[in-house]
Amino acid sequence: MMKPQLNLTHNSFLTRRSYAIIGAGAIGGFYGACLQKAGFDVHFLFNSDYQYVCQHGLVIESPNGDFNLASVQAYHDANQMPRCDVVIVALKTTNNYLLPQILPQVLKDDGVVLVLQNGWGMEEEIAQIVGSDRLIGGICFTFNYKLGAGHIRHLDYGLITLADYAPGYAAKGVTTRLCQIAADFSVAQVMIQLHEDLFLARWQKLICNIPFNGLSVILNSAIEELIANPDVRTSIEQLMAEIVAVASTYGRHIPEVYIQKRIKQTATMKHYQTSMKVDFDQGRSLEVEAIFGNPLRKAWQAGVQMPQVSMLYRQLKFFNAQNQNRFAEISVSQ
Amino acid sequence: MMKPQLNLTHNSFLTRRSYAIIGAGAIGGFYGACLQKAGFDVHFLFNSDYQYVCQHGLVIESPNGDFNLASVQAYHDANQMPRCDVVIVALKTTNNYLLPQILPQVLKDDGVVLVLQNGWGMEEEIAQIVGSDRLIGGICFTFNYKLGAGHIRHLDYGLITLADYAPGYAAKGVTTRLCQIAADFSVAQVMIQLHEDLFLARWQKLICNIPFNGLSVILNSAIEELIANPDVRTSIEQLMAEIVAVASTYGRHIPEVYIQKRIKQTATMKHYQTSMKVDFDQGRSLEVEAIFGNPLRKAWQAGVQMPQVSMLYRQLKFFNAQNQNRFAEISVSQ
Repeated sequence: MMKPQLNLTHNSFLTRRSYAIIGAGAIGGFYGACLQKAGFDVHFLFNSDYQYVCQHGLVIESPNGDFNLASVQAYHDANQMPRCDVVIVALKTTNNYLLPQILPQVLKDDGVVLVLQNGWGMEEEIAQIVGSDRLIGGICFTFNYKLGAGHIRHLDYGLITLADYAPGYAAKGVTTRLCQIAADFSVAQVMIQLHEDLFLARWQKLICNIPFNGLSVILNSAIEELIANPDVRTSIEQLMAEIVAVASTYGRHIPEVYIQKRIKQTATMKHYQTSMKVDFDQGRSLEVEAIFGNPLRKAWQAGVQMPQVSMLYRQLKFFNAQNQNRFAEISVSQ
Repeated sequence: MMKPQLNLTHNSFLTRRSYAIIGAGAIGGFYGACLQKAGFDVHFLFNSDYQYVCQHGLVIESPNGDFNLASVQAYHDANQMPRCDVVIVALKTTNNYLLPQILPQVLKDDGVVLVLQNGWGMEEEIAQIVGSDRLIGGICFTFNYKLGAGHIRHLDYGLITLADYAPGYAAKGVTTRLCQIAADFSVAQVMIQLHEDLFLARWQKLICNIPFNGLSVILNSAIEELIANPDVRTSIEQLMAEIVAVASTYGRHIPEVYIQKRIKQTATMKHYQTSMKVDFDQGRSLEVEAIFGNPLRKAWQAGVQMPQVSMLYRQLKFFNAQNQNRFAEISVSQ
């Protein structure tokens, strides 16, 4: 295994940071590969692709330029990994129950966890494991998928919005460590946006995640079909309005122009299947709690109902349970 | 064609009423057959079953006793029908656009129209055709389906709730003509319940129609699966609560005990597919406007939103449009 050339010092966080990628799928694998290509010391925790990647490395297709990493520092067991300065959590949130076993093994004492997941409340949960002063939230706006073992296609976009975490999701502003990590990603040719308020950043992303992920599964359709239908379009806008209302209750303002921009932008994505629809069609467990359940409970805490999000949540839970049973039956019968 | 023996006088409404069945399917055909068997003069307007029924009559299977009508007065064209004392409208509401051509042909000057359909607002629409003093609403609580041409199975229940119509759905109380028609059905062994307030009677039925019809289609499931799932059960109760709130805005009280009774009763129906699910699976147009759109617009008139009913309505419209396209394609390709 060829190791990338690196200059590591003792207090490496102040100089050249090392990265651990927990969940090296289409998102984690892609960003990790970009960091390694730029010369960073990156350690990838793989699941099913582990053996393949050990032998063949990673192949990345991207409009920014295709590249291969003939050798990567791949692991199947977190206990084998070194402690790193930045631990990127890029698992599906449905696997976050594994983190109490993993994070204490791979996070340096002065390291930070960067949570690259969709949904709400992950930082608060992970703070229980690593402490509340060691978390940064990252919201990816990218269109990636896996073509096969060790083979990732980055089709479009790629932006990560970074925001620092404080207990209760109080706005923490732009911190030094945020700038340092942003600089690393910039070196790796990844577009970065800094956000002063992780709460607002996450609820802005929910504006898209909730309607499009939810309705694409329930209505068994691609995004363009949903947006083209005037009734579904109305439902999308009403779901978004419920999210805006909750954010507003917590003092965060999401302007109408933001919503219209997101809808317009999404409408240009031809034949685009949401990640939740892809998960559903492939029989994987849906991220129902992170994307729907946690935001709902946050709304209820403030005495706000989100009735349409609530109905979508319950419909998804029903489908998810049915889907898991169906795929379990298929597995048994094979 | 053998005609049943009848005593008709000039003012027949006061004595032995004649009946026209507009839409002689699983519901209309069944109740019409019961009336004919009891000796009433019944005229059936058939669609696709017309030729078959002319040759073979009707076969009814029922827990109250199977019976055949070797000969029925069947029509394919309303212009050929005699004017009748009571015209029973038992079409799918999606075919109500045909009524302006039909009703003036078949309704006696002193006759009444009995609307045996699910949903809201049909009487108000039909009043535009025949006048607002000539309408009675009927709400069927029965479990019927067609086994084939001229072959109807009545599986369970059978009750009709009758209520007289007044403009704006003002409660009209129990009228003489209501009692007369109830008496006819009683002679025909059909269970009848009289209701003083058609508004309340129809919204009580919506309590079941909206959640069960809607969710069975969207979640592709039988009623027992819906009720057994705690999340769907919660959605059902929340949808019902929205309906109760609108009825309440219009001064109609639907008690909680009524709702719990309906859920309990529905939970006992094993393997029951709702009529909307059966329509969907067979590629027929769904009664989305009568059961969802019209109640929603009634709510909006009063400034009430029904957000969950609204989402279900738009989901159903999307599925309905897709379904119609799909079945149109199947027809073309055959």
